[in-house]
Amino acid sequence: MKIDGTPYRSVWVDADGWSVRILDQTKLPWQLDILRLTDAQQVAHAIRSMQVRGAPLIGAVAAYGVALALRADASTESLNRVVAMLGETRPTAINLRWALDRMRARLHNLPAGERVAAAYAEAQAIADDDAETCRRIGEHGLPLLREIAARKPGERVNVLTHCNAGWLATVDYGTALSPIYQAHDEGIPVHVWVDETRPRNQGAALTAFELGKHGVAHTVIADNAGGHLMQHGEVDLCIVGTDRVTRTGDVANKIGTYLKALAARDNGVPFWVALPHSTIDWRVGDGVAEIPIEERAEAEVTDLTGRTADGRLETIRVAAEGSPAANPAFDVTPARLVTGLITERGRCDASEAGLRGLYPEAG
Amino acid sequence: MKIDGTPYRSVWVDADGWSVRILDQTKLPWQLDILRLTDAQQVAHAIRSMQVRGAPLIGAVAAYGVALALRADASTESLNRVVAMLGETRPTAINLRWALDRMRARLHNLPAGERVAAAYAEAQAIADDDAETCRRIGEHGLPLLREIAARKPGERVNVLTHCNAGWLATVDYGTALSPIYQAHDEGIPVHVWVDETRPRNQGAALTAFELGKHGVAHTVIADNAGGHLMQHGEVDLCIVGTDRVTRTGDVANKIGTYLKALAARDNGVPFWVALPHSTIDWRVGDGVAEIPIEERAEAEVTDLTGRTADGRLETIRVAAEGSPAANPAFDVTPARLVTGLITERGRCDASEAGLRGLYPEAG
Repeated sequence: MKIDGTPYRSVWVDADGWSVRILDQTKLPWQLDILRLTDAQQVAHAIRSMQVRGAPLIGAVAAYGVALALRADASTESLNRVVAMLGETRPTAINLRWALDRMRARLHNLPAGERVAAAYAEAQAIADDDAETCRRIGEHGLPLLREIAARKPGERVNVLTHCNAGWLATVDYGTALSPIYQAHDEGIPVHVWVDETRPRNQGAALTAFELGKHGVAHTVIADNAGGHLMQHGEVDLCIVGTDRVTRTGDVANKIGTYLKALAARDNGVPFWVALPHSTIDWRVGDGVAEIPIEERAEAEVTDLTGRTADGRLETIRVAAEGSPAANPAFDVTPARLVTGLITERGRCDASEAGLRGLYPEAG
Repeated sequence: MKIDGTPYRSVWVDADGWSVRILDQTKLPWQLDILRLTDAQQVAHAIRSMQVRGAPLIGAVAAYGVALALRADASTESLNRVVAMLGETRPTAINLRWALDRMRARLHNLPAGERVAAAYAEAQAIADDDAETCRRIGEHGLPLLREIAARKPGERVNVLTHCNAGWLATVDYGTALSPIYQAHDEGIPVHVWVDETRPRNQGAALTAFELGKHGVAHTVIADNAGGHLMQHGEVDLCIVGTDRVTRTGDVANKIGTYLKALAARDNGVPFWVALPHSTIDWRVGDGVAEIPIEERAEAEVTDLTGRTADGRLETIRVAAEGSPAANPAFDVTPARLVTGLITERGRCDASEAGLRGLYPEAG
């Protein structure tokens, strides 16, 4: 997708042919800082500190991290070490493990001398696949927006989303935002209610930034506001991304997603979840009980960074001094609250039957 | 209640015997600024700008505003003018209208020469009544906490609250926090999950401040986190305040309250609402359709003020440049989601029968 007319992906190999470039998402929307990652430790830091975030993007960047590690040491021990190390960086998104498993499967039987080239090729394939997958998610989500537009000609189609599941969260196009971009591009008057998504404000910072750069009408709201808007008919559709979907259709996503799903159900608003196949965890049945929820630093709740009126970046404390904070980063929306899933193979019920219908070959 | 050992109310008459003192709540928790209000315009500004906020406190301060206006001009025209002017300052809290109606009823048949003294006396009575009312709300809410404590001896009692319904929102003691203070004072190991309450952060700033100053254990959380905590058994009870309750038990309160009520229902967590009689609007039956919801400034969503590490107060923008925001300040929780109401006369169902049982004399 484009920033001020220039096309970007969220991760790419530098012109030097081996180092890895990312946009520092902790600096967006204030600065467009392009970082150069040259070893697996830097990759781990980028994932942990959320310079890159979004389940699909984390997977792709981790794949490049394997390539960087093998470039330094192509041994099987090195391969195992980097896979274990990167696998620990964040616990909730399953795409990370999926990408690392795919890298190991591709590489571990190769002679050491062939591993580096194969690792870069496989990481590139993961990134390219993700972009194509997201484009298709957009195609399969688009009919939902077309249908609403047809039902209320001349009026705007109001979509609510939470966190950032746009191109910045994937390699390109996005998951939840991919159908929105396609709808906008074909002239549907789509308007997005952007949950700011405390504590890290990925909505207000990243989703608003993305949508603004692409010219999509949007309005930032406090996370508290969505229920009220739904009660008053101001939301036609919710679409969110996800960090892990169980085989039964439970959806782990950014903290607060569950509350919006409850409000959608209470007001008859369809609640859809967009995801690539790599986000499905076929081994987990009960999302609330089984998916590990990352607990992040208190300071993400008590402190905020932004830009002052005269252009400086400042960090301020917003909570009373001495008050502790808790910061669970994800919650799980039970499948019963999810209208359906939008994948690169089509839409399905949030259920084991629904998912197996689209992925009959899956474990 | 006390701040660092000194007892305060949230509004009082100055030692000069006529000007009105308030704590500037837009500066808390960073600075304890005591403002002196000397005319009704300053009172209107204090209410609109949320230097004072909280439905019961707004009512009491408005009553003093009438006294200040009459001190300048005790005519009937002046009385009508100040009641109309202050009545327009904020639309959602019904206590404001209640207090102004009470002042007018007390004053309009008096000779002009007696009005000033009577106005101060009536405003003082409103303030004193509110404090006593809140103390009783605490007594009637306390058994709910005792019951939970008895069920899990030795474990902490986890209460979730939204916004600030503490002594800063009333004249003293608070509504939702009053039972919590009483429970703490009698040794129940109560712990409060404090929703930060975006966009104005009354939870993180005011509730955390109040609880901290009184020594009540608490943890600040993003508004998004409450559903997750309830799913995992971390919340025994929700108690919130309200800005207006319909005769049918619908509850207008700070934006986001509805989402917590939905989560409480979904997880079997009791959801109680604490209020004085002055918050009941006997004329309204359907809260979602009929209660006016204040839309406040965009900048409250896009910008935040807090303290830098080196002690300066700074305001920063947290949303992407150029992205608009919407800021509905309240939502309505339908009575069906409310376990019950806690008033100064006892607890009741959130229903017309429940309310009329406690207030048989009401319109």
